[in-house]
Amino acid sequence: MHHPDPLVIFQPSGRKGRVPVGTSVLDAARMIGVGIESLCGGEQVCGKCRVRIESGPFSKHGIESDPDNAGPWRDMEGAHITPQEREQGLRLACATTISGDLLIYVPEESRPGKQVITKDARPIDMDCDPAVKVYPVRLSKASLEVPTGDLERLYRALEMAHGLRGLGIDIHPLRALQRCIHDGRGTVTASIWMNREIIRIEPGQGHRPYGLAIDVGTTTLAAYLCDLQTGDVVATASCMNPQIQFGEDVISRISYHLDHADGLAQLNQTVIDGVNRLVEKALSQAAASLDPPPVCAADIVDVAVCGNTLMQYLLLGLDPEPLGHVPFAPANHAGLSIKARDLGLKVGAAARVYVMPIEAGFVGGDNVGVMLIEAPQDSDDTVLIVDIGTNGELIIGNRRRQICSSCSCATGPAFEGAQIEFGMRAAPGAIERVRIAPTTFDVDYKVIGRDAWRRQSSPIDMQVKGICGSGILDAVASLFMVGLVAKSGAFVASGKSDRLRENSQTGMLEFIIARDAETSIGRAVTISQNDIRQVQLAKAAIYSGCKLLLKRVGLERPDRIKIAGAFGNHVDPQMALVIGMFPDCAIECITAIGNAAGDGCRAALLSRRKRVEAERLARRVAYVELSTMKNFQDELIAAMELPHEYDTFPHLTHLLPPGNFDAIH
Amino acid sequence: MHHPDPLVIFQPSGRKGRVPVGTSVLDAARMIGVGIESLCGGEQVCGKCRVRIESGPFSKHGIESDPDNAGPWRDMEGAHITPQEREQGLRLACATTISGDLLIYVPEESRPGKQVITKDARPIDMDCDPAVKVYPVRLSKASLEVPTGDLERLYRALEMAHGLRGLGIDIHPLRALQRCIHDGRGTVTASIWMNREIIRIEPGQGHRPYGLAIDVGTTTLAAYLCDLQTGDVVATASCMNPQIQFGEDVISRISYHLDHADGLAQLNQTVIDGVNRLVEKALSQAAASLDPPPVCAADIVDVAVCGNTLMQYLLLGLDPEPLGHVPFAPANHAGLSIKARDLGLKVGAAARVYVMPIEAGFVGGDNVGVMLIEAPQDSDDTVLIVDIGTNGELIIGNRRRQICSSCSCATGPAFEGAQIEFGMRAAPGAIERVRIAPTTFDVDYKVIGRDAWRRQSSPIDMQVKGICGSGILDAVASLFMVGLVAKSGAFVASGKSDRLRENSQTGMLEFIIARDAETSIGRAVTISQNDIRQVQLAKAAIYSGCKLLLKRVGLERPDRIKIAGAFGNHVDPQMALVIGMFPDCAIECITAIGNAAGDGCRAALLSRRKRVEAERLARRVAYVELSTMKNFQDELIAAMELPHEYDTFPHLTHLLPPGNFDAIH
Repeated sequence: MHHPDPLVIFQPSGRKGRVPVGTSVLDAARMIGVGIESLCGGEQVCGKCRVRIESGPFSKHGIESDPDNAGPWRDMEGAHITPQEREQGLRLACATTISGDLLIYVPEESRPGKQVITKDARPIDMDCDPAVKVYPVRLSKASLEVPTGDLERLYRALEMAHGLRGLGIDIHPLRALQRCIHDGRGTVTASIWMNREIIRIEPGQGHRPYGLAIDVGTTTLAAYLCDLQTGDVVATASCMNPQIQFGEDVISRISYHLDHADGLAQLNQTVIDGVNRLVEKALSQAAASLDPPPVCAADIVDVAVCGNTLMQYLLLGLDPEPLGHVPFAPANHAGLSIKARDLGLKVGAAARVYVMPIEAGFVGGDNVGVMLIEAPQDSDDTVLIVDIGTNGELIIGNRRRQICSSCSCATGPAFEGAQIEFGMRAAPGAIERVRIAPTTFDVDYKVIGRDAWRRQSSPIDMQVKGICGSGILDAVASLFMVGLVAKSGAFVASGKSDRLRENSQTGMLEFIIARDAETSIGRAVTISQNDIRQVQLAKAAIYSGCKLLLKRVGLERPDRIKIAGAFGNHVDPQMALVIGMFPDCAIECITAIGNAAGDGCRAALLSRRKRVEAERLARRVAYVELSTMKNFQDELIAAMELPHEYDTFPHLTHLLPPGNFDAIH
Repeated sequence: MHHPDPLVIFQPSGRKGRVPVGTSVLDAARMIGVGIESLCGGEQVCGKCRVRIESGPFSKHGIESDPDNAGPWRDMEGAHITPQEREQGLRLACATTISGDLLIYVPEESRPGKQVITKDARPIDMDCDPAVKVYPVRLSKASLEVPTGDLERLYRALEMAHGLRGLGIDIHPLRALQRCIHDGRGTVTASIWMNREIIRIEPGQGHRPYGLAIDVGTTTLAAYLCDLQTGDVVATASCMNPQIQFGEDVISRISYHLDHADGLAQLNQTVIDGVNRLVEKALSQAAASLDPPPVCAADIVDVAVCGNTLMQYLLLGLDPEPLGHVPFAPANHAGLSIKARDLGLKVGAAARVYVMPIEAGFVGGDNVGVMLIEAPQDSDDTVLIVDIGTNGELIIGNRRRQICSSCSCATGPAFEGAQIEFGMRAAPGAIERVRIAPTTFDVDYKVIGRDAWRRQSSPIDMQVKGICGSGILDAVASLFMVGLVAKSGAFVASGKSDRLRENSQTGMLEFIIARDAETSIGRAVTISQNDIRQVQLAKAAIYSGCKLLLKRVGLERPDRIKIAGAFGNHVDPQMALVIGMFPDCAIECITAIGNAAGDGCRAALLSRRKRVEAERLARRVAYVELSTMKNFQDELIAAMELPHEYDTFPHLTHLLPPGNFDAIH
């Protein structure tokens, strides 16, 4: 008698299915279509995929769930699950293997929220002169006497009607040519790349041409589907970069490649698959709106891509190993135009992908995109642009000179939630704003997906799941301002507030932002001492980078600071100044510029002139490797303090609590 | 209890194996590795795959063979197997399906001989200036201060050392670049296409570059592997065009496409697969010789292809439907350079395929190749070039003008053996020469694979399997000369020779070339009345085509006739004149030029100048569609006679028998 596969039921969704013995709970959830949060992609690292294995007979469900059916406890689970929680049946979904029937409860905290990635496209102002344009033409008739080839007649028609000479044709449109001439009764529309190569033939008038600008971030992929004739963005789609399963930052992805024979192939295929899903997403989004008319993959006749150097490497399938050691020379600086099909991208069959030029080191086409859009090179003022993604990239410059660099360590994780205990991405249920009253230490906060702040709500309505980047930053800044955290980043000894307590597991201090009753995860959401350290590390990397660049150009402070990246849109510039994230600057001179890299990529998609400019900028900008600069270590360590240079922020003193800072030291 | 699959044993090889119920005997033979001739590829058309199903217990083999295990008799088998033969157990291997154990005898006639396709490369004289050349260069070092991209340093080095500017690079060599620079300690070798695109990077000095010229014939594929630095042919390989399973001539392949939704895809994939196997064959041939050093697929950095228009279409995946009707306009006239990978060819990853320009109608790049090599355009004499492949193609021309055309019907099948009763390809066991004594009507003949003629051998040593094209032509010409066949092509009533007999099945006359004892197939090899008709049809197509072209240029006869194609090398020009295959011409002015198309393709592979010339020639040559010419039908019908214009061959009268031709009429 053959035993059926184990039956697995997930609660509260009630979804169930049979899975082969040996399947992990995480994989089973994916197979059955149940969402479980997993930042590390099942690598047993992030601890975000906690589930509870229920015990006992569940006659209603026709199942006897036995925790022994979930495989042996693994040591690494102990890093994320306390002994008490273990007794309650908590396990990591990625670490358990199913050997028999199970009823599994997925706690609120482990359910992925619909992610809010703000990668909206800003209006950009430029002439729309894309690399691919469409030309309708009427062909002369072939005759028995003069049986000129159809292609030759097409070339002649394009020359007569549009002055195009010396054209070539891709094999795909060539295959369609005769059918199109027939179906269009002699009229066809040719899509032509750079006035050089015919990449699409359609009968008659043809479809509107679309292009896709893709910003390949270490953590996030964003795609802008654009009408190539108007320049309008018709759909915006974004998703996690699925490479995150191989590591959260550039260094860990390079390590993955070095440790696995097929690492590069996996990293490459994973991001290509991700981009292809994103293309589908953008297309179905565009299809959902009545106007414009439906767009299909074949209508995407051009693509522009930007990312940091590693992301561009992995998309292209280039071996990133040389990027990891001196002299950090890239394979190429210049932009590349490669057939999308050679990369495996599912867009128009003969479309090309313009991969932006890179600057140096890890500063890639994304930073070129930022420069294209923000144009520090055209500014009389000295502008400091900080692009806070998973990696932090910096530009300082004005009309005379521009210098770029990348921060010395990953700035993202602290602000993406990965290294923060209750950290989560900017998704519904995430605390995004925090304020702490100076004397009562009462906490007010706002949650994504709910307009009313905590004080205007009853506790039960808050349904907090965690805290996202801007919330963490607010929390640390507020704790510092009210004197609960010292300059060093250490909590000031407890007793002042019942919210500041000792963690029963670690013995470390933590501060309660949302109490048990206000959360949907069954416990309080807190900021731990370690969380504060992570924020300090990230802000120190940014601050010291800015400082060293300013020193390089001989300036004390920039005229303006621009914060790029999705996080920049969320962050409260005031709070960022409080914790010393940026060099001193008048608060009104700090602006968030959104996903400037993506906007720049879109500019390159829509304008040939911008591509020429991109190539010029990438060559022209100077690059500084921060880690080789004098005082690098000193600056970094000094920048760990909160705020690094308190005295230089006289205009912020009103925000600071009547402090006993000196007493703390 | 599970029944094992049926056991099938093939004799005389003794090979055996189990195959699933429902497998055809032909497929079973392929699975077990037993060769069975099949021209039609199992389409139940050609009747070449006759096998004998043995009956009874074969204890030695542990098998009880029951003819009932070979599936029901099919009507179409009757076209190839007589009732008597059927009683003896004969079946068509493609029409039988195995349902139980079988012992199957494969008669000699059904065993494929090792094919002799004479597509040897002739020495061609020209400057070797290929499209792809290799350039070794030493790169400057990257430094931390000037971290120039490796690609940019490569471009600079190529410009400094070789004056190359404005280069691009394919994604594949880009992926290899950094590793090669590392492994070559700064020295790399770049293979560059047309001084324009880097298509290969190797560390250090790199390998010798090779190119492949491919002649895609309707029946035969031929490949010449050439050293791109010396121009030498290092390997020659040929095989049947596997598309033959979809039809033997161009019209039947177009029909196959029109009748099947995936016809084009099948035709395309089949020839691509065939070419890929040919590439492997050529490589292993080159590997077998000690000098040159081993060549691998990656060393093939350039490819040139020629074929008739349809063959080029199918290789490119172009829809051939428009070729089949007025105005017969092709998709393109000009040559194309397409990435080999886009066609699925397994050569160097970034290599391009130069597909020769076509002339008009079905006259394609193969004819351009003939013109490139034979250069009628440079001749003061008027040259008539007849390329006898499956299709016949014609050129007439001199320095002033050139006209091309294709014969009105397939000329090949009669000379390839497909439509001839005992016809076979030029393989061991095939009769290739026939002489008949004028009075005794005694027959002498020569067999491929045996030097001694019949008269110098004992009957048993001849081991005749069939008759190939040149043998058929010889036989018909000889029969005509000795008066056994009339001008009309009809056998002269029997009684003159015991070799001329009535076929017991058809009641038609046939002439015995090899008696039972001289063959290995258990019966006499004969020439039937129908065989003579097939030869008449083919020669009439060639003759009338030549005649019409001559008329077009206002000439009675050409100064020279050149016979291209493998068949041309075998054919006895004298015999060809006897049956009236070519217009009257002094016999010493008729020469065989071998596979001139393949030689021309090789020229295009080896010389950029030849590619330019090919494009010019293809545009310049005039094309005549014979079927639209006045008198076309009359000429064709008149040309059926043997010999068409007897009076114009006074110099051949010594070959003719003291005739009673008049008496026949």
